[in-house]
Amino acid sequence: MKSICAVEGVQAGGVRERKYGLTLIRAEGSAAGVFTSNRMRAPCIELMMERILSGKLEAVIANSGCANAYTGKRGYTDAVQMCTLAGEFLGIDPQYVGVASTGVIGRYLDLSLIERQCRTIAPLLERSEMAEDLAARAIMTTDLLPKHALAVRGRFRVGGICKGSGMIAPRMGTMLAFLYTDAQVDAATLQDILRRVTRRTFNRVVIDGDMSTNDIALCTATGESGIMNEESLESALEECCRSLAQQIAGDGEGATKLIEVHVKGAPDEEGAAAIARTIVASPLVKTAVYGEDPNWGRVVAAAGYAGVSFDPYQVSLWIGEAGRKIPLVKEGEIVVNLQRAKTAMQGKKVIFELQLQEGEGEATAWGCDLTEGYVQINGRYTT
Amino acid sequence: MKSICAVEGVQAGGVRERKYGLTLIRAEGSAAGVFTSNRMRAPCIELMMERILSGKLEAVIANSGCANAYTGKRGYTDAVQMCTLAGEFLGIDPQYVGVASTGVIGRYLDLSLIERQCRTIAPLLERSEMAEDLAARAIMTTDLLPKHALAVRGRFRVGGICKGSGMIAPRMGTMLAFLYTDAQVDAATLQDILRRVTRRTFNRVVIDGDMSTNDIALCTATGESGIMNEESLESALEECCRSLAQQIAGDGEGATKLIEVHVKGAPDEEGAAAIARTIVASPLVKTAVYGEDPNWGRVVAAAGYAGVSFDPYQVSLWIGEAGRKIPLVKEGEIVVNLQRAKTAMQGKKVIFELQLQEGEGEATAWGCDLTEGYVQINGRYTT
Repeated sequence: MKSICAVEGVQAGGVRERKYGLTLIRAEGSAAGVFTSNRMRAPCIELMMERILSGKLEAVIANSGCANAYTGKRGYTDAVQMCTLAGEFLGIDPQYVGVASTGVIGRYLDLSLIERQCRTIAPLLERSEMAEDLAARAIMTTDLLPKHALAVRGRFRVGGICKGSGMIAPRMGTMLAFLYTDAQVDAATLQDILRRVTRRTFNRVVIDGDMSTNDIALCTATGESGIMNEESLESALEECCRSLAQQIAGDGEGATKLIEVHVKGAPDEEGAAAIARTIVASPLVKTAVYGEDPNWGRVVAAAGYAGVSFDPYQVSLWIGEAGRKIPLVKEGEIVVNLQRAKTAMQGKKVIFELQLQEGEGEATAWGCDLTEGYVQINGRYTT
Repeated sequence: MKSICAVEGVQAGGVRERKYGLTLIRAEGSAAGVFTSNRMRAPCIELMMERILSGKLEAVIANSGCANAYTGKRGYTDAVQMCTLAGEFLGIDPQYVGVASTGVIGRYLDLSLIERQCRTIAPLLERSEMAEDLAARAIMTTDLLPKHALAVRGRFRVGGICKGSGMIAPRMGTMLAFLYTDAQVDAATLQDILRRVTRRTFNRVVIDGDMSTNDIALCTATGESGIMNEESLESALEECCRSLAQQIAGDGEGATKLIEVHVKGAPDEEGAAAIARTIVASPLVKTAVYGEDPNWGRVVAAAGYAGVSFDPYQVSLWIGEAGRKIPLVKEGEIVVNLQRAKTAMQGKKVIFELQLQEGEGEATAWGCDLTEGYVQINGRYTT
């Protein structure tokens, strides 16, 4: 089992009818959540922001195809009803059911469809590779691949599934991500850890700069391993979320390449992250990566408008994997060999490293190239 | 004469050899300038930020094809040299020559080419429709159309030319814009007026969210009409710059449609502008407009992450021209007729109006759709 079902105490399942998928995950434990900071947040997000305060989850229900966003009071009642349905079919208290939605904004849920799907899969939940794959696939929208990650630390594990694709520029939870661990941890500590980890992983992915109304990441700790080690849990959760974040970036709508930007020597980590995010979000950097055009000037131009203070002529910039990095700029001097730089852009992953020489701040962000595919997918989404 | 040469005291000329263009404009008067706020600003911007303090310009020299950006001390010396060349060939003090560059970042200027082009056009400067057209064309990069605007107020005029296209998300002067008036005004007043007008016009255009290293708008007042009327000048300059801003948006790289977003009822003008800019900058709104897909949920989602506080369920949203507006949302209720909304997206201009009911703040922003053409143009820019 490669992700959530590798964690003790987790059972999953999913079903899909055309663009409408439903995922159910059963796992009882202390729980934490992070959510979109978009003011237009969906009613299911409002509901979860209240319910997560109990610090406990017994299950999660999530649907794809309809975001139940901008649906007001009816949307809120519908989200409550999703929890009730999950509670009934799983025989648990609906208060402890997490709910999430993804899809078109401004449409109401088809609750009879959700009820039918819920009835179908509730008896089939299990701990198996197939079950976790069905769960990961049922929440997909324009994703091409299901996204799984697992981090193992001795006797405890952290596993997660998520969906990404478009409208990805989180300052928040991000997209739908469901994370599980069998480590033992109380809800307040788990919330702190999840918030820190999210800031360094999901919040450093930009597909298109559009922040969603429905982003959510929920983490449940079943405690079944009996292991308590906060530091170790944080590192495992970060490993798991980083893997999911990279999978989201690599599977961005229309993407052909993953872009990874390391910023070092910034005044602080926040400044480094701002610059790294700005570079991966730049349409001109994205299109240059797509065309394998070593137009590195766009990278430094994007760094310049990230709102962070630094001396442009102390900057160094490289392209390519560690060990085979090709210098483009060395302390303000242009040293690029365009042919070699072009070669470094031919793989599935394009890495830039920027050294500012201002301080000790470091951060990494992930994105993808911008292609005709993104335009085509998003030019005809609702129709 | 449709733009700058309609203004008393202005002579222009331009020449182009493949992607390398040179524009010269002769006009003496009090002068003001606004510049990019990108930290990676080009050396010619550094030079102009110092020289504009004199409040006087006698001419402008601008080249396209090479931005002379990220070129350090050599770039600064080269920018000074461009002024010197213009001064020599026009017989004026190089201290009062404005300089601007646009094109690829991280390359040095070919000064011998610029000298040759300068020698060719300096003797040919004139006040004519052909001359202003040559000047507007010589600064183009990926622009498809030259951009001219003229506002007339009784006996005085304001004319301008500019280039736009890509890397357009000004918080600043924006792109290259050269503005002339024969109104009589001192440099300090002109600077105040230009700054206010820029904020309401050029700074409300977003093509791709990338802020340039080289944006500049220079305004020279020859005073030859003898007219002094600050209010009237500000309204004329705003009319002229608004027209240029719309032309930039409509001629964005790969664009097929102009997007105009009116935000009303915001807490203040700044908040309205932030929301309007965020909507026109949204890749998901842009692709929906391209595909004529009435996915209005993306408009409200973008409004939600603009950083402005408002009640999502008090919002109303329309699509289409004044007089033929089609409601999508009325005070939080979804009222959209998708077929009618789709019809409203079929023209060359797509207009959204958003009413927040929070206050009196109003603003308009302009952008363009995101198409395969943008990706193709920018995937192979330097090569």
